[in-house]
Parts: sequence; C-alpha cells; structure tokens
Amino acid sequence: MTYDKEKLLKIVKKTEQPEIACLERLIAIPTCYAKGHDMKPMIAQLTEEFEKREYKVQTFPTSGAPVVVAEMDLGMDKTLLFYNHYDVQPEEPLDEWKSPPFELRSRNGRLYGRGVADDKGPIVANIFGIQAALESDYEPRCNVRFIIEGEEETGCLGIEEFCNANPELLKSDGCVWEGASAVPGQRSELYTGVKGCVYFELRAKGFAVDAHSGDAPIVINPAWRLVWALSTLKNQNEEILIDGYYDDVVPPKKEELQLFQQYPPDAIDPYKQKYKTEKFLLERDGMEFWTELTLRPTCTICGLSSGWTGPEAKTVVPKEAIAEVDFRIVPNQKVERVQKLLREHLDKKGFADIEIKLEEGSYEANKTPFDHPFVKLLASLAKDFSGKNPLIIPSAGGSGPAYLFGKHTPWASCGPVDPECNVHAPNESISITELRYMTALIGATAIELG
Amino acid sequence: MTYDKEKLLKIVKKTEQPEIACLERLIAIPTCYAKGHDMKPMIAQLTEEFEKREYKVQTFPTSGAPVVVAEMDLGMDKTLLFYNHYDVQPEEPLDEWKSPPFELRSRNGRLYGRGVADDKGPIVANIFGIQAALESDYEPRCNVRFIIEGEEETGCLGIEEFCNANPELLKSDGCVWEGASAVPGQRSELYTGVKGCVYFELRAKGFAVDAHSGDAPIVINPAWRLVWALSTLKNQNEEILIDGYYDDVVPPKKEELQLFQQYPPDAIDPYKQKYKTEKFLLERDGMEFWTELTLRPTCTICGLSSGWTGPEAKTVVPKEAIAEVDFRIVPNQKVERVQKLLREHLDKKGFADIEIKLEEGSYEANKTPFDHPFVKLLASLAKDFSGKNPLIIPSAGGSGPAYLFGKHTPWASCGPVDPECNVHAPNESISITELRYMTALIGATAIELG
Repeated sequence: MTYDKEKLLKIVKKTEQPEIACLERLIAIPTCYAKGHDMKPMIAQLTEEFEKREYKVQTFPTSGAPVVVAEMDLGMDKTLLFYNHYDVQPEEPLDEWKSPPFELRSRNGRLYGRGVADDKGPIVANIFGIQAALESDYEPRCNVRFIIEGEEETGCLGIEEFCNANPELLKSDGCVWEGASAVPGQRSELYTGVKGCVYFELRAKGFAVDAHSGDAPIVINPAWRLVWALSTLKNQNEEILIDGYYDDVVPPKKEELQLFQQYPPDAIDPYKQKYKTEKFLLERDGMEFWTELTLRPTCTICGLSSGWTGPEAKTVVPKEAIAEVDFRIVPNQKVERVQKLLREHLDKKGFADIEIKLEEGSYEANKTPFDHPFVKLLASLAKDFSGKNPLIIPSAGGSGPAYLFGKHTPWASCGPVDPECNVHAPNESISITELRYMTALIGATAIELG
Repeated sequence: MTYDKEKLLKIVKKTEQPEIACLERLIAIPTCYAKGHDMKPMIAQLTEEFEKREYKVQTFPTSGAPVVVAEMDLGMDKTLLFYNHYDVQPEEPLDEWKSPPFELRSRNGRLYGRGVADDKGPIVANIFGIQAALESDYEPRCNVRFIIEGEEETGCLGIEEFCNANPELLKSDGCVWEGASAVPGQRSELYTGVKGCVYFELRAKGFAVDAHSGDAPIVINPAWRLVWALSTLKNQNEEILIDGYYDDVVPPKKEELQLFQQYPPDAIDPYKQKYKTEKFLLERDGMEFWTELTLRPTCTICGLSSGWTGPEAKTVVPKEAIAEVDFRIVPNQKVERVQKLLREHLDKKGFADIEIKLEEGSYEANKTPFDHPFVKLLASLAKDFSGKNPLIIPSAGGSGPAYLFGKHTPWASCGPVDPECNVHAPNESISITELRYMTALIGATAIELG
C-alpha cells in the first residue's frame, strides 16, 4: 500500500461542501425513467460536472435513456472503471417522506433525498474520490472511465444496447460497481456477483365489465383464477414448483460454502436491523440464510391488483386481476427458459387463460471470482478504512446489468450495510461520514490499482 | 280479480304529466349518502308530496340518514307496505352522461336522470298507483304505508336501527320491495328472497418496510401469504373449503328445483346480454345456473391490493397485502358464524397472522315462500299487465335489508329486466311505458290485496 489514508481523508474533508453541493444539484433533477422524466437536464448536468474536471464526455443515445461516458485518459497501462446510474426509483408514497424527495436535506448527520444512496451519492463520491487522488502526492496510476446509465431501476435496455455496441469501453482492470465505501468500525460487505432477474406481469381476465358480486356464481372471477394460479408456483417451503425450474441451477461451490462458514455470527445483524426482526423467513439462519440469499433462485410476488380495495365495502366481481412476479435467477439460468417454463406450467395447471407479459429489462446472473486481485484490493482497502475485514459475498440477492460488464471486466461492489438508507423507499438517505469515507476509499483505489 | 285494467291505465295516463313532474322534483335533489349530500331538502319534498295526498308523515332520525314513514290509514283490515329508498349512487363518471344527472330529461320514450330507476321512479309510481286506485270505482281495500330510507346504496345502517326500534311498522299483508312493474310483451322477474352478505377485509403483514426483492429469500412476503391463504378458501370447482361452512346451509327445496325446471330456456338470455357471453362460470346452465345463482352460498374475492402494480417493473417485497372478500349467505347461515369459521380456518391452515376485519353492514338472508298469496297476487297481476307469466325467482343473488322486513311481513320485488336502465351507471333511465304500467300495477295491487 502506497497511499496515505489520513492525507486522503483530509483532502476529502476539505472538499466536502462542494461535494454535497454537487450531490444537491443531481438530486434536484428528477430522473425516474419509469415516470418518463426528461433526462436531458441530468445529461447536461453530468456533462458539466465532468468537463469542468477535464474529462472527455460522450453521450451515447439508446432506444431508452442515454448513457454518459466520461474518460480521463492519463496514458497509463491500467484503467479503473466506474459503473453508475443517474436514474432513480419512483418517489411514491409521497406522504411518507419527511422532506421533499427532490431537495437534498441534511438532518442528524445524514443527507436525505431520492437517489442519495442509489445511486447519485456514489456518483459524486467517485468523482470527488478521483479528484482527491489527483490532489494527493500520489497521482492516480490508472486511467479513469465512468459509464453512467439511466435505466437501472427499470431494466437497463439502454445499457444493454450500449454494452453490445461498445465492448471495448467495458474492458478495465477493475470496475467499481455503483460504489465502494467503508466506515470506521463498520464491517463492509463486498459483493462480487449478482443474480439475474426476470419480471413478469400476469393478467387474468373475466367478463367485459365489473359485475355485482350477487352474480358471482355465474361470472368468471379473475381474482380467484390469479390466486389459484399463483398458489401453484411456489409452496410455503419456498420451493418453486415449476417443472424443470431447478434443472440448470448450478449448486453452490465448496469454496462458497466455506466462505459462509467463516462469517461471524453477527454478519446477519444488519438484516435484523434493516427489517426490525429477530427471525427471518422460515427461520433461516447461518449457512442456509447466506446460501439462499446469494446463491439460490427465487420467485416473488411484487404486487397484486384487482377490483376494489378502498375503505368500505364494494361487492364486485372484478373484470381483471394483475400480479407482478419476479424470478431472481442464478448463473446458468436463462431468461427465455424461465419464460417458457412459466408458460408451460400455467398451461399444464389449467391456466392457459392467464396472460404473461415479460417486462422489459431482464438480467442474467454474473459472478467475478471472489479471489480475483481486484476483489482482494478492494477488500484490503475496506479493511484499512474501516478497521474490519469485510464480508465477501459471492453474489448479491439483487440483480443488475453487471452481467453485461462481467463478460469483459472484473467488478465488485463494496460498502457498509446501512439499514437507514431506505433504498427504493421513502426517506432514502446516506450518512455524511459514509459519503466522506466512500470518497477517500475511491481515491485510494485509484492510487493502488496501478 | 275485481279491478279493471283498462280503466286503471286510463287514469294513470291522465295523471302522467303530474307524475313525471313529481319525479322531476325528486331527481333535482341530489341524494348520494356516500357523498354527504344534505338529505333535508329531500325529506321536505317527500313530506310535501305525501301530505298533500293526505298521508300522515313521520320522519325517524337514525345515526345515518333519516327514514320517512308515510301512512294512509283507511281503517281497513289489511295493509300494503312499500319499501323504497330516496338515496342514489354517485353520479360519476360525469363525462359519460348525455344530459345532466340531476335534471330529468326525456328522450325517445325514456326518462333520464340519476335515480329514475333506482329508486325514485318506483317511489313516484307507488304514490300515483295508490292515487289511481283511489280515483277508480274500486276503492283500495287496504291501508297504505311507505317506508323510505336514505342509505340503501351504502349499507343501510339507518334502516337497521329503524327496523329494530319500530317492528310494528314492518307488519303488513304484503310489502312491495322497491318496485313492482310489468311491460306488455316482456316477461317480468319476481324476486321473493335475498341472500345475506358478510364482507371481510383480509390483511397480511410482512416486515415493517417494503423490501428489495433481492432479499426475498429472507423476508416474509405478505402477498404470498395472502395468496396461499386465499387458495385454501375455495377450490376451482367453487367449493368453499372452510370446515363446517355448509353445515347450516338448507338444501334447495324440491319445489324450488321444480320451479327452475319450468323456466323457459331463454330465461338465461338477459345474463348473456349483460355479460356479453354465451358461457358462464364452469359452463353453468339450466338448473345448476339457477340453483347456484339463487340458493347457494358464495365466496368472492372483490379486490386485491399489494405492493407495486404500475406500468414497468418494481422489484419489491410488499410490506402488506389486502384482499376484500365477501360471502353471500343463504337462510339459516349467520354472520357471526361465518366470521368464526373463517378465523378458525385460517388459524388451522397456518395463517393466524392474517388479520380479518368484518366490514360494517352485513346482511342476513331472507325468503318469502314463493307460493305465498301475496307473491301469487303479484305474479298474476304481472301476467295480466305483461301478457306473460313472470319468472318467479326464490332469491336474488344479491343482498339487502329485506331480511329486516322479512321477519315481519311477506315481501316481493317485481319488474321487467330492462338492460337500458343502467342502474348504478351513467345515463340511468326508465321507459315511460314502464313507469305507466308500474303505476297501474301498483293501483291494481292495492285494489286486489283486500
């Protein structure tokens, strides 16, 4: 290690106000792709932020949101890559926010706003981390490239087109995925893989109109049909009941299970805090907890909608019923096969009438080997900054376009588990301390990669 | 039969303009209880209409809308009772109305306005029918009592209080429920019963917050729990699977089944038109269609709500899931027992975590024997006026406060099926011919009851 942690932290502290101001500018621009927000103001803002720091900026249009690429080519052998996204989740339910979601607000050492943690905070930390490295005695010994897309929360069609068209921009010696951070005294989690995700809308239809429920004995009720169909997909032991679904699932490797065995028992605590619970689904704990969370496929009802659910009674037979269902898949499972098996399953079970719509933006799974040198570098820096060995997790439970990058570059994502972040939920926040350490750690990564 | 149909129709024709003017006055007063409309103007208007025809009028306050009782005591042995309601459904969606909902308009032989069919037209027909009987040679040989409530469309709490407090006012020799009418050449439907209704909100709760669905392997998913729980309530053959649920269900009587056997095959046609379908649930037809529709209990999902169901994907594990479920019950089934059995069932099946809330306004079932003299009278008058034998239906599939009256008086509801009425929908209407025949038929009922 050649970098000076204290010096880096000092530089970062000095630039904290400009960094927060930069984050404030990004938060102020609503960028929910699903809501059709205009992304041009964000592209312009990002371009301005990078150009004033002497990056070469290119915008790649896609059929969806444009991808912004900012490069600082220092003529070095190695390249540090950042993947981030400028889009955010919908801000609803609005009435649960304690401050306006598109205004950065500071309260009790935390910054609040939609996107502060996912993923505008990390963008800003990466930018200011590289600046800190430049300002320190040790110049960054690598070239830097940012790839920032705008459809992460809705399925990443644009980034898929971009990646297919520009594979050379995906090559690097290490890609920091969304963010890398460490907070003193807190154990980081270092992710080196993602599950894939296939998201379906299932729709059952009844007669042409909502009926009076007095006619229930003669009217097809799509809510019942959907409930019956869904109940055939998974049992209460969480076993997915679709024939052949598990056939192409690669079982966990011996090394991965050994890794879990080395986890300290309190590794589970952040989840207990996040969900304010002592017990998890099916009382999963220890090895089973980690294996299911990271290495096994899932089937989840994300939403249900049918008929009347307001206050008071309304006795109707709904004319249609909708379920949103996602399948998190593991390496070797294919999106098309999941869709085919689901259709076959519903047909076989007598639910040929239920329509399946594959929503845009499916992902495959991907893993960088957890003993790759880039992973080791991030792990040792995380330990340096936090004072604790990070938890190396071979795959996130979630998904993302990392699989598109993973074919070309090693990648990892690293940060402390912060149950107060409320990612995807109202009152999303990030601690100012974390933002500072995240920034410094990125500076160190740039210095050390060389 | 002692009345003279042609003479009655002639009298009614003569008073048609005042009758329509009376209806116009009632339509002009908006009376949607759910919208909090002030009911005082309607109470005043009804009082005026009845008092000028020498009825004694009393208004009974309730915790909801007042009940108006108008009595014409002629010192006779028998009493004819009318149940009506002065409240209406919400008028929305407004932009689908071809004329203002609270202005009576005449187009192509029909009268349009919110409430013309349900239930202000029948109120006016009943008033003018009695007047026609008084003006004919045959005086009405019965006393007359109107009971008109103002919460029928929202759950009838007020009428329940009224009925419990004033059982003597419910005694009569026959109660015309909302309306009785017949149109030349059209077969009437004559209902002599209602199912009961118990309406529950079922709520499953997960962890304190919506979770990212990447955490699905460890997070309790209330949408799954609700789906699994609901799927244990009823199978695809429409059999309710709650232990003991059918124990107190009285099987259809031989006479009722014989009644269905006498139905002409086209009795089902109005349902085909209403739902634009040739086939019904489980291809029910003939005897099975009518038995299930009128005499068997049901369990209906009226609504489902959980998590995210907007366009695009949102990969969440919802924090709660809600189902609205109604049970239509038949005579001898009790609201409290249905609630108890449902709770026991969910507990037994491992769903003690699912909360059950009984919504306000449950009904019991009630039937007047379809061979009761009052039913026979209405049936023969319906045939007299329409030229066709009416379809006598031992119970509606729907529910209502008739059960409160049915403990004290025989009752029936009779009218032609008119798909153009648009009851509860925009452009509610009634044909002027039907209004005329409805009025004359009520006059005949008053004359013949004695």
